[in-house]
Amino acid sequence: MSTPIYNRVALIGLGLIASSMFWAMKRGGLVGTVTGYARSEDTRNTARDIGLCDEIYDTASEAVKDADLVVLCVPVGVMGAVAAEIAPALKEGATITDVGSVKREVIDAVGPHLPGNVHFIPGHPLAGTEHSGPRSGFAELFDNRFTLLVPVEGSDPKATATLRALWEGMGAKVEEMDPDHHDLVLAVTSHAPHLIAYTMVGVADDLRRVTDSEVIKYSAAGFRDFTRIAASDPTMWRDVFLNNKDATLEILGRFTEELFALQRAIRTGDGDHLYDYFTRTRAIRRGIIEAGQDTDAPDFGRSKVKT
Amino acid sequence: MSTPIYNRVALIGLGLIASSMFWAMKRGGLVGTVTGYARSEDTRNTARDIGLCDEIYDTASEAVKDADLVVLCVPVGVMGAVAAEIAPALKEGATITDVGSVKREVIDAVGPHLPGNVHFIPGHPLAGTEHSGPRSGFAELFDNRFTLLVPVEGSDPKATATLRALWEGMGAKVEEMDPDHHDLVLAVTSHAPHLIAYTMVGVADDLRRVTDSEVIKYSAAGFRDFTRIAASDPTMWRDVFLNNKDATLEILGRFTEELFALQRAIRTGDGDHLYDYFTRTRAIRRGIIEAGQDTDAPDFGRSKVKT
Repeated sequence: MSTPIYNRVALIGLGLIASSMFWAMKRGGLVGTVTGYARSEDTRNTARDIGLCDEIYDTASEAVKDADLVVLCVPVGVMGAVAAEIAPALKEGATITDVGSVKREVIDAVGPHLPGNVHFIPGHPLAGTEHSGPRSGFAELFDNRFTLLVPVEGSDPKATATLRALWEGMGAKVEEMDPDHHDLVLAVTSHAPHLIAYTMVGVADDLRRVTDSEVIKYSAAGFRDFTRIAASDPTMWRDVFLNNKDATLEILGRFTEELFALQRAIRTGDGDHLYDYFTRTRAIRRGIIEAGQDTDAPDFGRSKVKT
Repeated sequence: MSTPIYNRVALIGLGLIASSMFWAMKRGGLVGTVTGYARSEDTRNTARDIGLCDEIYDTASEAVKDADLVVLCVPVGVMGAVAAEIAPALKEGATITDVGSVKREVIDAVGPHLPGNVHFIPGHPLAGTEHSGPRSGFAELFDNRFTLLVPVEGSDPKATATLRALWEGMGAKVEEMDPDHHDLVLAVTSHAPHLIAYTMVGVADDLRRVTDSEVIKYSAAGFRDFTRIAASDPTMWRDVFLNNKDATLEILGRFTEELFALQRAIRTGDGDHLYDYFTRTRAIRRGIIEAGQDTDAPDFGRSKVKT
């Protein structure tokens, strides 16, 4: 076996991302020992049952002891509190990273708690599924997906390069980005789409004249695509919106403006406006497929869903 | 071979739905001869090249001659003109159906042109993909999907039963529905979601501070789900919105109301409202999976997309 990238890695929080990281690190033989901690005893017991992590601890401080890399995999809203808790137990020279979907607020919440002798390199793997919890992870989650690293002022380039090597070993393409730009880009590619999907599903669930049973039966006409992302973890997403407020509201403002323009075209019968708009949006889909970020199989390849 | 359900079937318009019907009818050995017509010479030539339909005609009137079943598979906006054109050539006792996504306007546009000696039974298969054109069809498209039949006043129950048998033979589950209720249900499960997806993709394409290249690269964080339905046929969708104006605008109005409530919760930091909303929407996803209308595989089963 080649030299591990990190001898000891601590995963704090054991949901979809942490469990996928564990299996991806093991698949690649990338690290030595992986320790884990989750706040819920149930989750810790599940982890022990399924062999998730080499060692599971009952406190975060024990889990991070002697770790060369600590990965915060908890909802964005509790990153600061977790950082405060583990700070005194961190090993000198350790790298601290996170996987939160928002970067500016996480940096502001975590940074001040960390001692000067560790490297803080925030990160965000752009990968996930609508499933959550310790059983939902799998080694391939990051393959061919992007992970964004968001070094802060004073981040050591060598420590950043090592973290990059770990993500690349887990299959990801790695890029660096400034935190504010990250939060805006993610508001477009992730946060606004999730809120819109949640909204559409909520509306369908709340109509008097159309029953839930009808919505479910006839969902293959388009609606079901929205229900997948609207089935994502509620705690995680509550925290994302509360912590990326400005960028999300900016994009939603633009969205509403465009939606009103299209509603007006419908109301006034402006078919040319609609046709031109719908033609333009096809190009982005082609770009995504050419970039290997989605399948070209019709209907995501799921057309043959069985009963 | 058992007795065919119809001896002669004419498909008018040769896109995704017509071509899938052809392959599904052939798979089941359900009918005798299938004739076809498309307005574009290119499409007719493609159909001849790939063996789509037993006979391709250069006019719609020739294609429907002697047909026991005529299926209008053209955009909703031209259904009336096509009906007017073929009406004189229809065989006495033939059944005329369509596959349009809107029913009230199609009934009003087509009905008046048809002679009294044919059976008009509007229909709508709730199935499709983001691909279009004569090459996009496949026999399994309707398997386990719903087709809604919308009989009009005076529709012959026997003729309806025969059409139902054909759709069931093609794999579909068939239900009957009133046209106005159809248009409202579809506004929820299909038309509003499509307009919202088109809007979100249009917004992302039109931002100054985030490039198209960034949107494409980082689309796996949620956005790409929207791009699939926003890649659907522009002509078809323009016509859907223009012909189901009231129901679509009603649902979009409700959508905007909810979206504003959620935006307000974000702005004021009302995490409980967000959490409760996001928890409620998970149940609909479970219902859709239990009803066999979508896959439970994480990420629609496409997580292992290759470059």
